[in-house]
Amino acid sequence: MKLLTDKIEREGIVLGNNVLKVDSFINHQMDPQLMNEIGLEFARRFKDAGVTRILTIESSGIAPAIMAGLAMNVPVIFARKRKSLTLTSDLYTSTVYSFTKQESNEITVSKKYLLKEDRVLIIDDFLANGQAAIGLADLVEQAGAEVSGIGILIEKSFQPGADEILKKGYRLESLARIASLQDGKVKFAADREVQSIYSGGY
Amino acid sequence: MKLLTDKIEREGIVLGNNVLKVDSFINHQMDPQLMNEIGLEFARRFKDAGVTRILTIESSGIAPAIMAGLAMNVPVIFARKRKSLTLTSDLYTSTVYSFTKQESNEITVSKKYLLKEDRVLIIDDFLANGQAAIGLADLVEQAGAEVSGIGILIEKSFQPGADEILKKGYRLESLARIASLQDGKVKFAADREVQSIYSGGY
Repeated sequence: MKLLTDKIEREGIVLGNNVLKVDSFINHQMDPQLMNEIGLEFARRFKDAGVTRILTIESSGIAPAIMAGLAMNVPVIFARKRKSLTLTSDLYTSTVYSFTKQESNEITVSKKYLLKEDRVLIIDDFLANGQAAIGLADLVEQAGAEVSGIGILIEKSFQPGADEILKKGYRLESLARIASLQDGKVKFAADREVQSIYSGGY
Repeated sequence: MKLLTDKIEREGIVLGNNVLKVDSFINHQMDPQLMNEIGLEFARRFKDAGVTRILTIESSGIAPAIMAGLAMNVPVIFARKRKSLTLTSDLYTSTVYSFTKQESNEITVSKKYLLKEDRVLIIDDFLANGQAAIGLADLVEQAGAEVSGIGILIEKSFQPGADEILKKGYRLESLARIASLQDGKVKFAADREVQSIYSGGY
């Protein structure tokens, strides 16, 4: 998505060879017009997926998810993160390990808002090791619902998350794919669909 | 705002005499069309306030804030909550006590995204004791910026937050005002502007 890759080129800050900071428009400060366009783009990409509900995770997933929900006219749920698990029968819970923070969090969603008839679009800001997306998919499957797709703003394609997700058979749409952050520079990968047509990307 | 008070009447759940649960459309599951209308309503109410930036707090404030940002065409920042304060020179921090959770949290915002020229609209989902809103206003004032108003989805008018905020001289716009939750029933108060015209509400 050109609007997003342009913004990353202009405002993204590369730290080391692994970290891309997008605090000025996604993670702390947010650009509402960009978020709206992102919502419309997800609606376009998943228009044939029969989505009935969107699931994201607090906090940075909420803005793009609510915009996608507006464009697709479906309710949006955000999973909550919490340190430790107190068992409660009205919640689906899954464990997500954060490589960045080196800690495990429980993520939870109320059973009331994920029904077995649901076709759920999962949205998150970043895909790196895939732990959050896989945890969210786990919540959907605990409900007996279907994951109709996973929509990501920024995929770090040089980390294993995208492959993990594709290996599990989920449909993955990433609006920006980062091939490398070596030498302080953002190098993008081609869109996955384009890549498959031209066999190999650039 | 009738759309919101109607929704509260239909879907809000009263617990005890103090708690209104709105998990089905604001706090956990979110209604994107309603959030969009809320954003438009804030834009309407604060159209003459010269707002240059919106500040909210994770997580439930993000959806209404991003919609208001879209309608007003200004960037949105969300303050982060964290348990303990590690001093860092690039953050404004304030302490917010939660009466519900009976704990203090630090809230923080990067100095990069609050400038002294800013006129800041603060948005949050609930106003009860006013701690979060006052903490957010404190961040704005640390930056030397101006609080151009505080926009709240649901004000519990029987708790002291609204009076505290008005006493400090801030402009407050609450889209739904709850006069009482006694006996498991939601009783609304009139809009503050209407109330002042007709001296005393209904």
